[in-house]
Amino acid sequence: MNIAIAQSGGPTCAINASLLGVFRAAYKSSEVDAIFGSINGIEGMIGDNLINLKSVIRTNEDMELLRQTPSTVLGSCRYKLPDYEKDTEVYEKIAACFEKHMIDSFVYIGGNDSMDTVVKLSAYFEKTGKPYRVIGVPKTIDNDLPITDHTPGFGSAAKYVATTVQEIIRDSSVYSIDSVTVIEIMGRHAGWLTASACVLRAIGQEAPHLIYLPEADVNVPRILDDIRRERAKHQAVIVAVSEGIDVSSLAESAGVTTAGVDAFGHKFQNGVGKVLERIIAKEFGCKVRSIELNVMQRCSSHLCSKTDIEEAEAIGAAGLRAALSGHTGKMMYFRRISDTPYETVIEMTDAFQCANLEKKFPKEWITPSQNNVTDEAIRYFLPLIQGDVKLITRCGLPMHFDRSSFEAFTNL
Amino acid sequence: MNIAIAQSGGPTCAINASLLGVFRAAYKSSEVDAIFGSINGIEGMIGDNLINLKSVIRTNEDMELLRQTPSTVLGSCRYKLPDYEKDTEVYEKIAACFEKHMIDSFVYIGGNDSMDTVVKLSAYFEKTGKPYRVIGVPKTIDNDLPITDHTPGFGSAAKYVATTVQEIIRDSSVYSIDSVTVIEIMGRHAGWLTASACVLRAIGQEAPHLIYLPEADVNVPRILDDIRRERAKHQAVIVAVSEGIDVSSLAESAGVTTAGVDAFGHKFQNGVGKVLERIIAKEFGCKVRSIELNVMQRCSSHLCSKTDIEEAEAIGAAGLRAALSGHTGKMMYFRRISDTPYETVIEMTDAFQCANLEKKFPKEWITPSQNNVTDEAIRYFLPLIQGDVKLITRCGLPMHFDRSSFEAFTNL
Repeated sequence: MNIAIAQSGGPTCAINASLLGVFRAAYKSSEVDAIFGSINGIEGMIGDNLINLKSVIRTNEDMELLRQTPSTVLGSCRYKLPDYEKDTEVYEKIAACFEKHMIDSFVYIGGNDSMDTVVKLSAYFEKTGKPYRVIGVPKTIDNDLPITDHTPGFGSAAKYVATTVQEIIRDSSVYSIDSVTVIEIMGRHAGWLTASACVLRAIGQEAPHLIYLPEADVNVPRILDDIRRERAKHQAVIVAVSEGIDVSSLAESAGVTTAGVDAFGHKFQNGVGKVLERIIAKEFGCKVRSIELNVMQRCSSHLCSKTDIEEAEAIGAAGLRAALSGHTGKMMYFRRISDTPYETVIEMTDAFQCANLEKKFPKEWITPSQNNVTDEAIRYFLPLIQGDVKLITRCGLPMHFDRSSFEAFTNL
Repeated sequence: MNIAIAQSGGPTCAINASLLGVFRAAYKSSEVDAIFGSINGIEGMIGDNLINLKSVIRTNEDMELLRQTPSTVLGSCRYKLPDYEKDTEVYEKIAACFEKHMIDSFVYIGGNDSMDTVVKLSAYFEKTGKPYRVIGVPKTIDNDLPITDHTPGFGSAAKYVATTVQEIIRDSSVYSIDSVTVIEIMGRHAGWLTASACVLRAIGQEAPHLIYLPEADVNVPRILDDIRRERAKHQAVIVAVSEGIDVSSLAESAGVTTAGVDAFGHKFQNGVGKVLERIIAKEFGCKVRSIELNVMQRCSSHLCSKTDIEEAEAIGAAGLRAALSGHTGKMMYFRRISDTPYETVIEMTDAFQCANLEKKFPKEWITPSQNNVTDEAIRYFLPLIQGDVKLITRCGLPMHFDRSSFEAFTNL
């Protein structure tokens, strides 16, 4: 029996650890022969673009490197399966790929879009009487999947955010002038990653003084009041703001649009950081700067959380075992048993409970002032960022898994 | 006898290590009694705003924390001394501060602007027959000081750049579409930090495929030709570009301006990353994104170079010893003896040889194609990024030196 693995959605520091988890569990299983990687998510299964993973992951060092390499070594996609009652062709192509390569189990590592694929594909196989199993393994730095306590990839991103925000706090407090620093953090629909900056309180850091989440009741008069109050207390005010904030409504109430015009005369949308920067500078006339943590917050493996990486590997392995045990249409998830000592178990749920759904940051963890989060949030976040991974380095630089050998082993 | 220390210019990861070097050398010296820190660079000497450093740096842990804290714990300034023949008042205030606190030696840690202060102040003291000594200790992530082989703070910034660029390379290669990623790196006048991304070649990384420095002959037709050629070879083309590139002339030759208009109708200047992003997208119609490494490249102490931090501490100590030996108006610097094994010695030179001057990236290390650097550059950069500092952490986060105790000990 053969199995296949694919990765989907945006990069994280942990998605290759989950791939390794599936690979190792498959390798150890006496039931599994070939282990295929599908290139660029489900697109690889549709286009019969597979790689024989045993040919490219050969040594212990290969495995270590895979674990410490950010982003997806198998490539990713944003492809959404069509409704199978309207368009069966794609499904037939996927089924043909399973059949051709004698694949019995397929593990899909991804976010809520990928769980939609797990739901549709497993339903199609069931309906058409095909014995193939499809299991979802979660990942996303946004931490916005329902059911699971948290998602692999989030802990490393949170560790990056907290560590980097603390460094920016130091950077922001050198001159003898008043300033406001706005740090824009990823999370298109949920504020989890922005909120995670609160863990700095656990080590006695007062900043970020203000944390604005999409789930909070945030508006311009309130923001300006907040900043006025913090400026009275601190020379360098630090604000963490989620990119998921409804920036259009903020801009509208400040009497501006979010649209800028670039050097070519083309309109572009300013993010919430830039818009807040302008609104604050206009009101207070002080130095204001906005900083985007950009893709670094999702790919900085040199600063990953050991807890996150180990969990990502474990949940990948559990996903493969679930498939081998005959389950299909399920997503693996973490259930937290306790914060201190930190303890979780891996369980499974129907993937449709997560597909296309988002878990918001809990309203009850937002302070009444709507500009910060409670200590419950700190207790939730802290265990997820613990531990450092000892990286294999050369010349003072972390080594990454080398994909160049892929060419020889794809398009079997 | 008492001594004073101040820090100036932009933040780095190593400037507090140099402060520690001065402090420790002073602490060990039987000649030195009080060790003062001047708050916000020379401004603290002008305004008599000093701190008794022995009161705030008390334990070995304090020293360890100081070493691992980015940015300047004493604060910084951009203050430039007036010409002392035109305006003596400021100089008299500084001299009064020396006299009041019985300060004999002053060590100023900073970049080329700060060396201007060292030159002027030491000349004033000499001219007025005051026995005070002023010594400069270099620092800047830009690495653009003359005479010295390199500057403290640069090695850590270069390590951040190389490590992060490699992670962005991974992040940029996940989807099955063509893309160009432009990474804008600091260096207002010199390309050292941007060039340092070349060290990835030492570990077999082909990208960044193109490296554009202010010292190279860069123009739009050449850039577009370069990118066309690289696109033929790579699905994800990675470009490292220095913020110091003459972006106006690039924009002009592309028939655009660098000015944008923000949401408030205010004009703003686009950086070279954004301008190149638009120029490339217009030409090729592919996915293009630009990423700024922003302040993270100068304050990410969690990723500092051990070599850099140790050297910064050593050169601070050497600066203090030079002052105690009676030298004044000098800047300490590194002379490199050999690349492999890496060996440097610390010497001193007249500070006027560095004041207000910039050391450019060598033209002979730029490839004839003007879009990359030679292997000599790799050999130069590599030793500077070696080694990791074992950080004191709590709750999974690096601890920083706590400045809150300062309040009780400033304004003596």
